[in-house]
Amino acid sequence: MFDKNKLEEIRLEKQNWTKNNVEKTISRFPERKESFKTGSNLEVKRLYTPDDIEDLDYNEKLGFPGQYPFTRGVQPTMYRGRLWTMRQYAGFATAEESNKRYKYLLEQGQTGLSVAFDLPTQIGYDSDHPLSEGEVGKVGVAIDSLKDMEILFDGIPLDKVSTSMTINAPASVLLAMYIAVAEKQGVPKGSLRGTIQNDILKEYIARGTYIFPPKASMRLITNIFEYCSKEVPKWNTISISGYHIREAGATAVQEVAFTLADGIAYVEAAIEAGLDVDDFAPRLSFFFNAHNDLLEEVAKFRAARRLWARIMKERFHAKSEKSMMLKFHTQTAGSTLTAQQPDNNIVRVTIQTLAAVLGGTQSLHTNSRDEALALPTEESVRIALRTQQIVAYESGVTETIDPLAGSYYIESLTNKIEEEAMNYIKKIDELGGAIKAIESGYIQKEIQDAAYNYQMEIESGKRIVVGVNKFQIEEEGHKDILRVDPEVERLQREKLKALKEERDNRLVEDVLMKLKEKANTSENLMPYILDAVKAYATLGEICGVLREVFGEYEQSIIL
Amino acid sequence: MFDKNKLEEIRLEKQNWTKNNVEKTISRFPERKESFKTGSNLEVKRLYTPDDIEDLDYNEKLGFPGQYPFTRGVQPTMYRGRLWTMRQYAGFATAEESNKRYKYLLEQGQTGLSVAFDLPTQIGYDSDHPLSEGEVGKVGVAIDSLKDMEILFDGIPLDKVSTSMTINAPASVLLAMYIAVAEKQGVPKGSLRGTIQNDILKEYIARGTYIFPPKASMRLITNIFEYCSKEVPKWNTISISGYHIREAGATAVQEVAFTLADGIAYVEAAIEAGLDVDDFAPRLSFFFNAHNDLLEEVAKFRAARRLWARIMKERFHAKSEKSMMLKFHTQTAGSTLTAQQPDNNIVRVTIQTLAAVLGGTQSLHTNSRDEALALPTEESVRIALRTQQIVAYESGVTETIDPLAGSYYIESLTNKIEEEAMNYIKKIDELGGAIKAIESGYIQKEIQDAAYNYQMEIESGKRIVVGVNKFQIEEEGHKDILRVDPEVERLQREKLKALKEERDNRLVEDVLMKLKEKANTSENLMPYILDAVKAYATLGEICGVLREVFGEYEQSIIL
Repeated sequence: MFDKNKLEEIRLEKQNWTKNNVEKTISRFPERKESFKTGSNLEVKRLYTPDDIEDLDYNEKLGFPGQYPFTRGVQPTMYRGRLWTMRQYAGFATAEESNKRYKYLLEQGQTGLSVAFDLPTQIGYDSDHPLSEGEVGKVGVAIDSLKDMEILFDGIPLDKVSTSMTINAPASVLLAMYIAVAEKQGVPKGSLRGTIQNDILKEYIARGTYIFPPKASMRLITNIFEYCSKEVPKWNTISISGYHIREAGATAVQEVAFTLADGIAYVEAAIEAGLDVDDFAPRLSFFFNAHNDLLEEVAKFRAARRLWARIMKERFHAKSEKSMMLKFHTQTAGSTLTAQQPDNNIVRVTIQTLAAVLGGTQSLHTNSRDEALALPTEESVRIALRTQQIVAYESGVTETIDPLAGSYYIESLTNKIEEEAMNYIKKIDELGGAIKAIESGYIQKEIQDAAYNYQMEIESGKRIVVGVNKFQIEEEGHKDILRVDPEVERLQREKLKALKEERDNRLVEDVLMKLKEKANTSENLMPYILDAVKAYATLGEICGVLREVFGEYEQSIIL
Repeated sequence: MFDKNKLEEIRLEKQNWTKNNVEKTISRFPERKESFKTGSNLEVKRLYTPDDIEDLDYNEKLGFPGQYPFTRGVQPTMYRGRLWTMRQYAGFATAEESNKRYKYLLEQGQTGLSVAFDLPTQIGYDSDHPLSEGEVGKVGVAIDSLKDMEILFDGIPLDKVSTSMTINAPASVLLAMYIAVAEKQGVPKGSLRGTIQNDILKEYIARGTYIFPPKASMRLITNIFEYCSKEVPKWNTISISGYHIREAGATAVQEVAFTLADGIAYVEAAIEAGLDVDDFAPRLSFFFNAHNDLLEEVAKFRAARRLWARIMKERFHAKSEKSMMLKFHTQTAGSTLTAQQPDNNIVRVTIQTLAAVLGGTQSLHTNSRDEALALPTEESVRIALRTQQIVAYESGVTETIDPLAGSYYIESLTNKIEEEAMNYIKKIDELGGAIKAIESGYIQKEIQDAAYNYQMEIESGKRIVVGVNKFQIEEEGHKDILRVDPEVERLQREKLKALKEERDNRLVEDVLMKLKEKANTSENLMPYILDAVKAYATLGEICGVLREVFGEYEQSIIL
């Protein structure tokens, strides 16, 4: 793209500068470190100039926002048209408590909802299951049945908000509950907007809240793809998640590579199940982490978009441009927050917010300063939301699209991340795809190595974490910590008991029987799950039936 | 710099994109605003591509860090060699109190000092002057004599820190006190590092703490230039300040233009006083604001560097590259902080810190979250310092030099700001230079118009300030507010009384007489001020003598 003669001049000047200026300076004042790296350990040069991106062809590699390869964004007007959705992940204790928090967030200017479920809900157990003890309502809201879901969204019109639900193995059940609540509100399925996380592969890799073995999991997921493409066309049927992969210690390159590799596995499964790529691919969405290295993260998001577009076009021969667009939600990196000096986390979250926005995210959760300590207080959640609003309205970065494009450093790093992620994807292909690479433990091992390396750098002081291994202070105890009342568990069990007395238990038996029968066929299970939910069968009961048919997955990896 | 054919292709594609993609989208979903602007009201385009900077010649316009025109920074290794100096502006109540705060800041990892003086000190009155009443120790530390200065730096070795002093009209006196303290510590003048603000023109323009008329002020300043070039060669003899100009409501362009115009006036005065440009120009330093519009600010710093280099080379025929380097201190924008929801200010200060660092600052003060309410508490000051440390050690932006260079938007905006600032400088030249432009009120009027416009935008809701005209909450009273004890004033007066009893008053009379005599000649006053200071003549006494000779300046502008 650059004039060849000019490039030659620049190269020459760079050599002179290095010899006459840099080397002389360094001989008197050495640099602070022997080598400089990104947060993810990619080598960083002292200076980037046009010759670092000499092969970059603008039209081919960057193009225009809203057009292939979408490097500069998925919409032609981006934030000039509409800001990203400000979507704080929230939920704790009972449906009543969480409902109150959602209403608070909407009042404060949040523009979408994001439901955190407690651990029992995530692994398909009711609040009265012995394994649920001590966990009910703790890391999220406890949802046992449609009853709870009705309370959760009470007074929140589902045609007006979009909702993300972080639910994986039992995604079909919670999506069915959401559809049922909407029906009761008089909102047609066709107008529902939101996502279910529903990405089971990253659960095997990094997060651990799976129930069924891969094959059954993939069937449930493709069932959702198919069902939604007809019945809930505006719903994003999966949120393919790099977030937890990154939180587990992966690098930025690994985050992109393993997430897109998982994406490839879903696309392959759906095609194998007989779906047409352009029928479901437009509703795939992604979920990434925003870490501290501001510019590496921006490059990461841009690289991910370009790479996915290429994969969808070249590998899967998608025809619709919508199938090639990588749309994503971002959450700031919980793992970077420190329990020490919690107000410092506001600074980190601001940097990460800028990374997400300069990277062109479609929606964003900003972590609260006290999340390393406990559930966030109302005040902390508000500051986190204000962080997004200040970046949106005061920082100016939303006024033009992809404002860092062309930066020699950013473009060079975008190329690098794309290239290294592609190498990983090739390797995973050689291993037989993402599922095989997970079953063999390859992906987990790569992440563990990166995590170990990161930890060693902190322990050796090579990597500084402010307030942790440098700039520490003596800390007082923390005030205003929000903890879930143990009473919640008792209450939730009582509600469940009452439900089981009130509902039509004969009907429940029927719908569960039917579901079991269909689970043994290859039919799409969504309609039967929806029937079960509407009859007030509980989450535990529905998942119990599926457990009987599908069995449970046990991690059996030799590392 | 770009290949001509490629540029043609890009232009063509851009037209297609605008027609086929943008216009269609906008007809269905209009953009959020009719026009998009930077924080300083420069027009922002939807998308920047290579054709927006087609005339940019890399070697000529950007070059290499540490080389003319210094667009990419003044040192060849920048933050890879050494991080910027973290320098928090602090000082309140007595010298004892302020000394404690400095030691706290140094313990927390601050790397330079910055002294805030109270208003009486800034306008050359002692604490017992009638006009000082109610102001002693309020906005900074009260310094009446060398005695106070000795306490202020007690236990702080002046050969180990660099110190900035925000002092203008009485700059010679405070610099003399600093030299005298160093001597008592056994530190030779020649090794002292730091700055005095000493920029009187911006006091006439924007800040108001002047004493003498312009001519006398300029003489005192050139006296310092000359004295330091021989005796205190590592001292930055002036900090030409855009900070207060911006705080008064100027735009980014005006900040650059008026600051550099003031710089031109100082250079001209010094040359007129017979100094050689390369003798004093290397010790000129600058002081800028870091506002909220992240990328505009980065462009501003880069434009200021390029423009000053050009002025020094082309207009003043400087020969030494050191004379062409614009080195600057930055302070985050106090005027952007809100009394509402003070924790939100941590977010703003983070954005502004990134702006300063991505813009290549040499030192930085970060404002504390509670500065819109009161003097910052220790906790707030610590968070502000941590903000710098997190950007320094965790954000990755220090690993490569001028990382945003090449960005189509940043480079285009850098060009724009340089061009518009140059237009202002031409206009000021036509008016006869900065002093004339100030005396006629031109500069003040331009700033007032910008400030008015900004205020109107906030009042009309066109410009959103989070927590102020949108996203407000009901606020409780603020806890932990630091206020200066009125007792300070009594104490300070007592100390002054005791001093006047203890010192050799005959000697004081002699040195003051001598100073008065020399003030009436054209001799350099620095040595006589130093003698007076060492005899424990007070600040008020020294400035009193100069007032008698020079008279006082009264603003007489018709707007």
